Amino acid sequence: MLNFAVLVLHCPDQKGLVAAVTEFISRNNGNILSLEQHVDRHVNEFFMRVQWDLNAFAIPKEKIGDYFGTLIGTRYQMQWQLHFSDERLRMALFVSKPAHCLYDILGRVHSREWQVDIPLIVSNHLDHQEVSQRFGIPFHHFAMNAENRHAQEQKQIELLKQHNIDLVVLARYMMIVGKPFVQAFPGRMINIHHAFLPAFIGAKPYHRAYERGVKLVGATAHYVTEELDEGPIIEQDVARVTHIDAIDELTRRGGDVEKLVLARAIRRHIERKTLIFQNRVIVFD
Amino acid sequence: MLNFAVLVLHCPDQKGLVAAVTEFISRNNGNILSLEQHVDRHVNEFFMRVQWDLNAFAIPKEKIGDYFGTLIGTRYQMQWQLHFSDERLRMALFVSKPAHCLYDILGRVHSREWQVDIPLIVSNHLDHQEVSQRFGIPFHHFAMNAENRHAQEQKQIELLKQHNIDLVVLARYMMIVGKPFVQAFPGRMINIHHAFLPAFIGAKPYHRAYERGVKLVGATAHYVTEELDEGPIIEQDVARVTHIDAIDELTRRGGDVEKLVLARAIRRHIERKTLIFQNRVIVFD
Amino acid sequence: MLNFAVLVLHCPDQKGLVAAVTEFISRNNGNILSLEQHVDRHVNEFFMRVQWDLNAFAIPKEKIGDYFGTLIGTRYQMQWQLHFSDERLRMALFVSKPAHCLYDILGRVHSREWQVDIPLIVSNHLDHQEVSQRFGIPFHHFAMNAENRHAQEQKQIELLKQHNIDLVVLARYMMIVGKPFVQAFPGRMINIHHAFLPAFIGAKPYHRAYERGVKLVGATAHYVTEELDEGPIIEQDVARVTHIDAIDELTRRGGDVEKLVLARAIRRHIERKTLIFQNRVIVFD
Amino acid sequence: MLNFAVLVLHCPDQKGLVAAVTEFISRNNGNILSLEQHVDRHVNEFFMRVQWDLNAFAIPKEKIGDYFGTLIGTRYQMQWQLHFSDERLRMALFVSKPAHCLYDILGRVHSREWQVDIPLIVSNHLDHQEVSQRFGIPFHHFAMNAENRHAQEQKQIELLKQHNIDLVVLARYMMIVGKPFVQAFPGRMINIHHAFLPAFIGAKPYHRAYERGVKLVGATAHYVTEELDEGPIIEQDVARVTHIDAIDELTRRGGDVEKLVLARAIRRHIERKTLIFQNRVIVFD
Repeated sequence: MLNFAVLVLHCPDQKGLVAAVTEFISRNNGNILSLEQHVDRHVNEFFMRVQWDLNAFAIPKEKIGDYFGTLIGTRYQMQWQLHFSDERLRMALFVSKPAHCLYDILGRVHSREWQVDIPLIVSNHLDHQEVSQRFGIPFHHFAMNAENRHAQEQKQIELLKQHNIDLVVLARYMMIVGKPFVQAFPGRMINIHHAFLPAFIGAKPYHRAYERGVKLVGATAHYVTEELDEGPIIEQDVARVTHIDAIDELTRRGGDVEKLVLARAIRRHIERKTLIFQNRVIVFD
Repeated sequence: MLNFAVLVLHCPDQKGLVAAVTEFISRNNGNILSLEQHVDRHVNEFFMRVQWDLNAFAIPKEKIGDYFGTLIGTRYQMQWQLHFSDERLRMALFVSKPAHCLYDILGRVHSREWQVDIPLIVSNHLDHQEVSQRFGIPFHHFAMNAENRHAQEQKQIELLKQHNIDLVVLARYMMIVGKPFVQAFPGRMINIHHAFLPAFIGAKPYHRAYERGVKLVGATAHYVTEELDEGPIIEQDVARVTHIDAIDELTRRGGDVEKLVLARAIRRHIERKTLIFQNRVIVFD
Repeated sequence: MLNFAVLVLHCPDQKGLVAAVTEFISRNNGNILSLEQHVDRHVNEFFMRVQWDLNAFAIPKEKIGDYFGTLIGTRYQMQWQLHFSDERLRMALFVSKPAHCLYDILGRVHSREWQVDIPLIVSNHLDHQEVSQRFGIPFHHFAMNAENRHAQEQKQIELLKQHNIDLVVLARYMMIVGKPFVQAFPGRMINIHHAFLPAFIGAKPYHRAYERGVKLVGATAHYVTEELDEGPIIEQDVARVTHIDAIDELTRRGGDVEKLVLARAIRRHIERKTLIFQNRVIVFD
Repeated sequence: MLNFAVLVLHCPDQKGLVAAVTEFISRNNGNILSLEQHVDRHVNEFFMRVQWDLNAFAIPKEKIGDYFGTLIGTRYQMQWQLHFSDERLRMALFVSKPAHCLYDILGRVHSREWQVDIPLIVSNHLDHQEVSQRFGIPFHHFAMNAENRHAQEQKQIELLKQHNIDLVVLARYMMIVGKPFVQAFPGRMINIHHAFLPAFIGAKPYHRAYERGVKLVGATAHYVTEELDEGPIIEQDVARVTHIDAIDELTRRGGDVEKLVLARAIRRHIERKTLIFQNRVIVFD
């Protein structure tokens, strides 16, 4: 059974950073499984992700964070996160009427492609109650309108906290999420937008793509921030369309891209391979 | 030797359109080499491109247009164009400092991949005078500034008319082209924009793509209209980039996409496979 | 409600083919919704797919085939098939242990993206019995070994015939299908092979792709014929991999391509957009 | 002016490798500009590429290799190569009749996209003598036939040695290169094959792709070894084709892929980002 630690960090670039981190691991008998680092010369910031085997590691798991912070992190002014291979993320799904992303995620989790739990599905419609039940996942319906929206969102935040949700996925949830909700899950809420951002921000992107006569439709998975569709981008992809394709065909072709792009983004998050820095996502590979 | 006619047309959708056109050709002993047609249900418009062998065709080449217009075109309110395989397009290239599109086009023409002539290259800089000379193509330098711009463009229009230019290609020409110039070449001026339009309209798209943290950079070839970067799109494509890639790397990866996208668009135009309708390009295939 | 006919045909190229077919439709008051045709000059064969509105069509639906065959088909030695928009395909799924294609297909059918029925799922393992039940689809387990294989396949053919199956989909069914089975469903059995055919025919393609050090992995959906992995190709696609990706990662990345490629192929078949000619698939678009 | 060193290495995986190399650099006042490393668990081999600034580096440039070998390389049984940013590769081009790769490479070098020299172009035909002269590059014609082939190749090897050629690029050179020639440039001869290897090894791949009815055509850039088209793959890519595309169209679409794939492979080699290990190419990024 694999038993490893993942350290993700960034700090202002300085000499000796790679050596400092790798020595900390090697000296304590940790074997590095993978290491990625780079410097963004535009902002002179250093980024690193390192994964090492804990089996013979000299420092007890629960103390690694303390030791690293004291010996290395503070000294180099690092922002860092430490994760372990035995943590299992708890993911909540928010959906409206479009079904393709929901089915794709349920399939990946149910077939154990991803090691996560889905304690609940939330929707502003009842369409997907039945499929949620087929997969044995509690379904929570919140009817939303202009009046009750704020109150309903407060209840949603409560519900997510009760269930210790680590990651909220807006899997084609056709509502704009309010500020308090966004602030409750900073860097832990992923949305799929059905366009190649920053093109076609906002509503009805496939209609606007059709009107503009584009030759590719796209999808963008991003962390949600307070500005609509302006959050840091995790993954994007496109599909070719032609002048023959009407809006329904753009929607269908785009749908296949959306579910793939969202799945890749979720996977990267689950694997602790993402790091947000100044509205950009470093995606370690 | 191939000797064929190409008819490209559109009109309001009606019953019997395909039958009417194909009968006109078959009855006069023309063999259809390819035919594409479709109806855009959104606007209820019919589009068609048909190519036929002229070797045994009963109507003399110079009268085909008259006959078709009288017998079919007017009756169905068609907008149509007729071209022949022995026409050879005369293409003018406009460039600034970036070189990749220029070299790619020169290579394709010089190696006879495309059957076009390039009677002249125009630039607001002197950088590419030498390569133009190597390929034996007259190079015209027009220094441009805020004061002389209008006058210089008038001279450029004159020059193009003197040389009977059919198609103007802005192959990374970093100037905004004035209204009179655009109006002189309606549907006959192609620009390559170094972004996936409608994202990053205007200046410095790679810088803005970097700032936004996109995961793909793109390029768009479009017919030039009076609104900057809003003309009908002929072709688009993208290339993957990562968080590691700085602006210079985005520029480099994008450059390879630009030259490919522009080449595909020019080729489609040369083959008479494009048709502009309401700010969209029908690209027959 | 749409009510249309689809005619798919091929014959030796001759003059007047398009005119003959389109006149047959227009003269009888049918409105052509889409038409695609081309000639393969390599073999001098003509291919056509035409779809027309039946609402005002003069010939009763049940007699269209007779009339077309008598008036047009025989005269031009056409091979043709006629389909109607109200037919609903009955599709059987065959699976082994890999789950991704199965879940993807179930999701598309259950969410009504595709208008088909799945009367049964067949497997040589019990792994997917539970998910079949969740979707309310009868699951048939056939344990297979060298001795019983022929007998078991006979039972499978019987089962499929009892259920009037139109299309058999081998959705990562890791058994080689016997000759009698293939012959029972000519042009009606689709397989997904987890490689870019003709590379890596046969077993363990991802292992061999890893050994060869390829930079892309692929997937191929094809009609099954008696020669293993040699059937006519409907659709292919690829995904990029790097030197870092081990066999499990190739398998995972390839899996996403497989399910997309298989889905596109099934969709084309459902829409009657495929035509097999001399081990090639014409895919009308 | 950038002044940096690049170290590319591999060795059996052991603890402390990253720390050992990075300490060697940091301790001697080198600032790491980029570092990539990974372990191939399949073969338990460690791979690394590290690039560092030489401006304040304590060890004189000409002694870095000695010091590194003695202190680190030998101890860990490393295979390593050391390069410096001021080296300029000397590249020879071999071509036959197809022109697209040649023009693309000439364009990139002449426009200074790549920092390499092309001291000579070799061909078994005279077609490209004129374009070589336009770019001022000496052209060497070697007529080849079954009798003189061995002797001509010996002369070619001589010629390349006289000109101190570092890298031989077979830019659509339609001859099979003999064993002595291959052995004279191990890991320093790149070929572009016009197929997605290992599909369509050998002659006329587009013809065979057409016969097989594939839906994508591809290209593969690889280091040349003694086995035809079996050398380690540097880069591959594909382009979509349809049933309509005849062999000439496959050739044309494939040509655009070939030139892009070959250019990417050459660039990786120039940047010292490739490492051959057991018939696989590690392509650092």
